[in-house]
Amino acid sequence: MATSVEKLKTEIQVPVAHSGSKVTIVGVGQVGMACAFSIMTQGIASELSLIDVMEDKLKGELMDLQHGLAFLGNIKINAGSDYALSAGSKLCIVTAGARQREGESRLNLVQRNADILKGMIPKLVQHSPDTILLIVSNPVDLMTYVAWKLSGLPKERVIGSGTNLDSSRFRFLLSERFNVAPNSTHGWIIGEHGDSSVPVWSGVNVAGVRLRDLNPAAGTDADTENWGQIHTQVVQSAYEIIRLKGYTSWAIGLSVSILTKAILKNSRNVFAVSTFVQGIHGVEQPVFLSVPCVVGENGITDVIQQTLTEGERSQLQKSAATLNEVQINLVL
Amino acid sequence: MATSVEKLKTEIQVPVAHSGSKVTIVGVGQVGMACAFSIMTQGIASELSLIDVMEDKLKGELMDLQHGLAFLGNIKINAGSDYALSAGSKLCIVTAGARQREGESRLNLVQRNADILKGMIPKLVQHSPDTILLIVSNPVDLMTYVAWKLSGLPKERVIGSGTNLDSSRFRFLLSERFNVAPNSTHGWIIGEHGDSSVPVWSGVNVAGVRLRDLNPAAGTDADTENWGQIHTQVVQSAYEIIRLKGYTSWAIGLSVSILTKAILKNSRNVFAVSTFVQGIHGVEQPVFLSVPCVVGENGITDVIQQTLTEGERSQLQKSAATLNEVQINLVL
Amino acid sequence: MATSVEKLKTEIQVPVAHSGSKVTIVGVGQVGMACAFSIMTQGIASELSLIDVMEDKLKGELMDLQHGLAFLGNIKINAGSDYALSAGSKLCIVTAGARQREGESRLNLVQRNADILKGMIPKLVQHSPDTILLIVSNPVDLMTYVAWKLSGLPKERVIGSGTNLDSSRFRFLLSERFNVAPNSTHGWIIGEHGDSSVPVWSGVNVAGVRLRDLNPAAGTDADTENWGQIHTQVVQSAYEIIRLKGYTSWAIGLSVSILTKAILKNSRNVFAVSTFVQGIHGVEQPVFLSVPCVVGENGITDVIQQTLTEGERSQLQKSAATLNEVQINLVL
Amino acid sequence: MATSVEKLKTEIQVPVAHSGSKVTIVGVGQVGMACAFSIMTQGIASELSLIDVMEDKLKGELMDLQHGLAFLGNIKINAGSDYALSAGSKLCIVTAGARQREGESRLNLVQRNADILKGMIPKLVQHSPDTILLIVSNPVDLMTYVAWKLSGLPKERVIGSGTNLDSSRFRFLLSERFNVAPNSTHGWIIGEHGDSSVPVWSGVNVAGVRLRDLNPAAGTDADTENWGQIHTQVVQSAYEIIRLKGYTSWAIGLSVSILTKAILKNSRNVFAVSTFVQGIHGVEQPVFLSVPCVVGENGITDVIQQTLTEGERSQLQKSAATLNEVQINLVL
Repeated sequence: MATSVEKLKTEIQVPVAHSGSKVTIVGVGQVGMACAFSIMTQGIASELSLIDVMEDKLKGELMDLQHGLAFLGNIKINAGSDYALSAGSKLCIVTAGARQREGESRLNLVQRNADILKGMIPKLVQHSPDTILLIVSNPVDLMTYVAWKLSGLPKERVIGSGTNLDSSRFRFLLSERFNVAPNSTHGWIIGEHGDSSVPVWSGVNVAGVRLRDLNPAAGTDADTENWGQIHTQVVQSAYEIIRLKGYTSWAIGLSVSILTKAILKNSRNVFAVSTFVQGIHGVEQPVFLSVPCVVGENGITDVIQQTLTEGERSQLQKSAATLNEVQINLVL
Repeated sequence: MATSVEKLKTEIQVPVAHSGSKVTIVGVGQVGMACAFSIMTQGIASELSLIDVMEDKLKGELMDLQHGLAFLGNIKINAGSDYALSAGSKLCIVTAGARQREGESRLNLVQRNADILKGMIPKLVQHSPDTILLIVSNPVDLMTYVAWKLSGLPKERVIGSGTNLDSSRFRFLLSERFNVAPNSTHGWIIGEHGDSSVPVWSGVNVAGVRLRDLNPAAGTDADTENWGQIHTQVVQSAYEIIRLKGYTSWAIGLSVSILTKAILKNSRNVFAVSTFVQGIHGVEQPVFLSVPCVVGENGITDVIQQTLTEGERSQLQKSAATLNEVQINLVL
Repeated sequence: MATSVEKLKTEIQVPVAHSGSKVTIVGVGQVGMACAFSIMTQGIASELSLIDVMEDKLKGELMDLQHGLAFLGNIKINAGSDYALSAGSKLCIVTAGARQREGESRLNLVQRNADILKGMIPKLVQHSPDTILLIVSNPVDLMTYVAWKLSGLPKERVIGSGTNLDSSRFRFLLSERFNVAPNSTHGWIIGEHGDSSVPVWSGVNVAGVRLRDLNPAAGTDADTENWGQIHTQVVQSAYEIIRLKGYTSWAIGLSVSILTKAILKNSRNVFAVSTFVQGIHGVEQPVFLSVPCVVGENGITDVIQQTLTEGERSQLQKSAATLNEVQINLVL
Repeated sequence: MATSVEKLKTEIQVPVAHSGSKVTIVGVGQVGMACAFSIMTQGIASELSLIDVMEDKLKGELMDLQHGLAFLGNIKINAGSDYALSAGSKLCIVTAGARQREGESRLNLVQRNADILKGMIPKLVQHSPDTILLIVSNPVDLMTYVAWKLSGLPKERVIGSGTNLDSSRFRFLLSERFNVAPNSTHGWIIGEHGDSSVPVWSGVNVAGVRLRDLNPAAGTDADTENWGQIHTQVVQSAYEIIRLKGYTSWAIGLSVSILTKAILKNSRNVFAVSTFVQGIHGVEQPVFLSVPCVVGENGITDVIQQTLTEGERSQLQKSAATLNEVQINLVL
């Protein structure tokens, strides 16, 4: 006898197995879940896979997300420890990794996080050979290099979330001082995500009016207005938030969701993300650092060539040398 | 010497030729443009092609849309008379056709609109063999049949906008009387788009409370509250709006944009759209009529089996017979 | 000498102190923050105040939200322990309270949470005399009663999040079985949030097709298809998610954000929320229970009168009696 | 006996008469309707009044918008010739006026459009004394002055749509040449909307990289790359679109909807809009011209002080003199 469901519907064809806008998130800690929820509430993806080893946590998060779907447009969500669930992803976001501890430098995390990536990246690429990888795990510039090496993917399809977040923090703090909306306040932080990041003061502007034209010393030691303090605050932000609430989540989740949207929608917006910079700004080593990039459906298509000061260039080159020193000692 | 653009950017790879969420709209009259603008303002597609023969109008509309892009997320838009522009579309929306004149019945438009489709459908399918077709041209049920025949596509990938609009008008008018939001007011109009459409009174409800349980006569001649007048108003709406402003545009544009979203996002929502109904509700002829369907990335996957009254069934069967009589006389 | 900021801008007038779409959230635990982030990512409010006593946590959450603003439209956010920050709110959302522990019944939490509300509600109303209160703290039906008593506000402006979440869980689980989008699947759970909630099987439908017409036994003991199990799953959901991940957050955050949108936008949508039900469905006591309500800018304007079975009515009345017994023993 | 509606709902209180996010649009021509539809599809306002003298057209447009509401969140819409309908508006958008004809200069339209405003502005202010006025009618800088004079409102609450559209066209055309998203391409056109507008080449940048640093001659006669042609195209755009499709609508509709959002949401974003510029950039006359302004819930709060070249300043001053000459001859 026909069931209620059979009475309700006549199937005309089988639904698609995988949506064309599928995203996988590896790691359902605070960062991974903030990414997932940001993507979901903004309707960015139409299918979401969550991968982790913590089966209980994973199931709890899956149920909690699914129970909100009646309030949103429909998104297919699954979760599990089997990478086969990630098959057909347009984008795989890797947030897994040991979390940065209070006071811990990002560099200390490297080898143990690289070992974790070894168990993930090849499986992701196996199930989604055309995927783009977006690496969020810290230290992100090194982890992006590691993921690139492990993946065998062309470099333009392996992206680190990099200083997109640092730039957002920079814009917010500038906007507070200007008393103008953060998304009408422009400024870029490039280079290494974290302590050694480089604020490009020459690009700070509101409506095309450059801070440097109002105050030529802005960002230098000679500046009596002390704009440089804003970069100091950006650098301390992660440490301070970890001290205050235990971890950072919302802003990195939003940063990742905006990058996800740019990729899935082929937006060609410019973001400061970690990319392969050998040959750029005098960097000689095969490292990943953040510079403004044009992002679209096939990953990074262009790098914006900023005009840097000698000090900014040498800071980038110094970061590159430091990263490379770690890289050559990594066991991959 | 390097140009400014070469100095600004270093190309890493060529951008994708076609985005994964490409939509083509054929016909840039009031309906086609309302569809395009609805899709654009709601950020539904990432690439839009407009096809028409009126080169001047087309260029004017293209420029006018493009000039608004700085206010929205980026969408790639092109326009022209060459169907090669439509290549790689996930969905092709056909709005072209002679417009229904004041007082003209939808059936009068058939053969001349069928002839117009002959010049379009094969070219659309040639350039996007995996496309779904969404037919808006009137009389829509017949034009959907014509498009299906001309396309050679499986029937679940040829969809008519059908009574999705009639149902929306029905819900709005019901919502005015209930004084509840239109999207909390549920009701379905099925069958032939236009004069012979069938309101399914048994399904009208707010929060699961059925109008028929409050007033068993609702929608019948015996009804002293005259709910049936709302269906009369729905039927007269198109004629009245054409009389008042010359054409209908906004609501059909929204109807189409919502269907577009359901397809591109694989939403699996239920809409009353025109589909192949031979074998459903006692229909014997190979015709397209609207019934509630589950819509996803590969088109229609399921038909919802409503429990109809004998009167509702016979109205559907009568429409089917009338449509079939026209169809067998069409030269395709 | 003019500062850079003075050079950049000439002030024409002082910005508004408070935006017209201001929301305050009391309590920045997992639920409060999921509410805040849902509201922010969906662009629902233009000003957000977070109130809590945990100054460190509060500052960390504030910074983490603010750092994401450059990716969204601008929202003014502040945070602190001083209720003066909440001044001018259109809506105050109260999530504070001791969290339901694994296995703990909602009723056990009452008096200690009532005592917590005593320190909050009068201050909220003092600073925003025209506010609407949305109570999320558990046990929510009792806490809504307590907030109403403490606030002195008319009953239509004190709303409990109630079974809006239970209904969403119900729709999701039904949608999985129907294989249709959750927001095309209709069903309502009313009454007491939690263990004693009442699924109204007569209202379960897809496209107006009632499950009860397909299977008259659905939801009863005689049902061989066991639809009743879905309600059992809904009831167990909160306990199971708490067991699996430690707390529930995302779905309740979305539930609250959707109610917030309905209020700020005057949407007049229907939601199952906790309202004063004395005189409805035979309830005799002055208690709050969830029934479908029309929600707008001034709070609840209408209660939908569902046709309930005798069993459903008596379950509501039983809940009312139980709640009332607790209420009369509360020290307010 | 109770009606079905009375059986369905028990009214608890009367709904609000006017929503807190009410917008009135005067004039339902192509521009007014593109504004209305943009605002509606993006969910910006919760109440919309359309005012015009063409009763038939008005009723047709109202019905056509309302019939799409079931696909969107609920918005209350009314329409009529009675300005009492506009009561309680936060923002009144004036699009009425004789349309610019093919080849007609904007200045020719002045006195007859001023006479039209005399019948509108006092009535709008009478019914919404706290409203902000957004003037779109052309020639917009003069009409904004006229509206200010007629309204008696403080100057910061009378805003002209000005060169916000010219700037958007500029950004799109620049973005095409840079092959970067339009909303990642920055550039400002200020001054008089139309033929005498002033592109501020010093502010053109992508990711903070200034075109002028890549090509110091950009925008001047000495420029071998001919960037100045883009400004020429911007100026010709309106004329060309009018020639091609008969009118402009979509881009101005989007421009206005974005300004509406900034005002209703208190966003504090920066837009080039027409404001009272006496005393700014050496302008001596009491005229309205576009400069970058910070826009919020109470209108314009700040003017951004761009660093202009002598040529740019003198062009502004020349426009001011020309406008003033017209203004002193106007009969208001």
